[in-house]
Amino acid sequence: MAEISQYAYRVEPQEVDFTLRATLASLGSAVLNTAGVDAHGKGFGVDVLNADNHSWVLSRMALEIDARPRQYTDYTVGTWISDYGRVLSTRNFTLTDAARHEFGRAVTQWAMIDLSTRSAVDLSWVGREHEDAVVPVPPPTDKPRKIRSVTPTQRAERRVVYSDIDFNRHVNTMRYIEMMLDMLPVELLTREAPVRLDIHFLRECRFGQTLSIGCEEHAGGALFEISGDGETAAVRAGIEWR
Amino acid sequence: MAEISQYAYRVEPQEVDFTLRATLASLGSAVLNTAGVDAHGKGFGVDVLNADNHSWVLSRMALEIDARPRQYTDYTVGTWISDYGRVLSTRNFTLTDAARHEFGRAVTQWAMIDLSTRSAVDLSWVGREHEDAVVPVPPPTDKPRKIRSVTPTQRAERRVVYSDIDFNRHVNTMRYIEMMLDMLPVELLTREAPVRLDIHFLRECRFGQTLSIGCEEHAGGALFEISGDGETAAVRAGIEWR
Repeated sequence: MAEISQYAYRVEPQEVDFTLRATLASLGSAVLNTAGVDAHGKGFGVDVLNADNHSWVLSRMALEIDARPRQYTDYTVGTWISDYGRVLSTRNFTLTDAARHEFGRAVTQWAMIDLSTRSAVDLSWVGREHEDAVVPVPPPTDKPRKIRSVTPTQRAERRVVYSDIDFNRHVNTMRYIEMMLDMLPVELLTREAPVRLDIHFLRECRFGQTLSIGCEEHAGGALFEISGDGETAAVRAGIEWR
Repeated sequence: MAEISQYAYRVEPQEVDFTLRATLASLGSAVLNTAGVDAHGKGFGVDVLNADNHSWVLSRMALEIDARPRQYTDYTVGTWISDYGRVLSTRNFTLTDAARHEFGRAVTQWAMIDLSTRSAVDLSWVGREHEDAVVPVPPPTDKPRKIRSVTPTQRAERRVVYSDIDFNRHVNTMRYIEMMLDMLPVELLTREAPVRLDIHFLRECRFGQTLSIGCEEHAGGALFEISGDGETAAVRAGIEWR
């Protein structure tokens, strides 16, 4: 039976803000990087899927960080797949420091798309073929919450440029997170309190589109909605500091 | 006598564009990260300097990439300081693949600033105190070129936000590079040809400022100039594909 796989990271100088602690975006980036590396190592990475004209796309993510680690801190990201549904597979993560103290965790849900039609395909075959990659350990926290509606109190506009896009030619997740968090006061972003981020993808945003980023701020957190070229919402997210 | 220090990297999934090759910004980021890690390990990192209310700031950088490595490629960044002047120290880099083939190189020049006055301090004492950290190997390519004037043919505006700033509270180098390159056609950015980037910092851009990014495109390359809040140029750069 498969076990939780562990990957070593360190908070690099390029990943900290002026409080010298890792940014939320850089920790989220380590989590998503781990997903790619683990799938690659186990034979169902994007590289293998692409040969079949398929790709993984992130559908939802919940990321909880209790305390942002300081520059040069070594940490470990553990990851495991807890289940494959027909449409979504669930990949989990824990972030632990050198003293084995868990300071963060994440739950992600992934769909597989056909690169020609850009629509989701039935995942059942992956579940059957890679059944031995499933680890019967439940997710470390609540699954990502669906954010149903956002009533923005402020808006920003931004064109999608080369540095925003990923290997799938759509806006990369960390850039979405940065665009949203950049609308909040720096005092909130650098607060040393446990934080939970839920992000939920509804459609892709592509190179050259103009994004509208709406933010509904409230005490200790905010809701966000991003849409491209006046289309319906592409991304919704919520962040809460405790 | 000191030797060239080697640091291991791998092209991570978050660092590639849709050609599945590492972006220039991510390779530049690995280079600057190596500078921080090496200085830290040798006892003259930003962490030690900050205690004395000093910090390193990058003054100029030249980065040459002959071929952008593919996703999951292991590579090594070698780094050494070749000299300390009164105002600038020169730190050099080579990027080599697993077969020891050099596919890139960089030369950087750093000043030390007093964090209260934000002005440069005399480096001679660092040269004396850390003389044993100097490696008598010349820079691997021409030192960074000074770009004297730019006549923009196009301009973009952008506010400095939280995700743009670094531990020094000013815009981080990779974000400047992204801002500039994002003005060029994607076809040029994803061209597989040797490229050289020269970047030259004249003043800092800070959180909340509005940046104006000017671009003077010509066959096979471009010049750039960034200024904050209508001040004189803060950054000038040039990029050339061969």
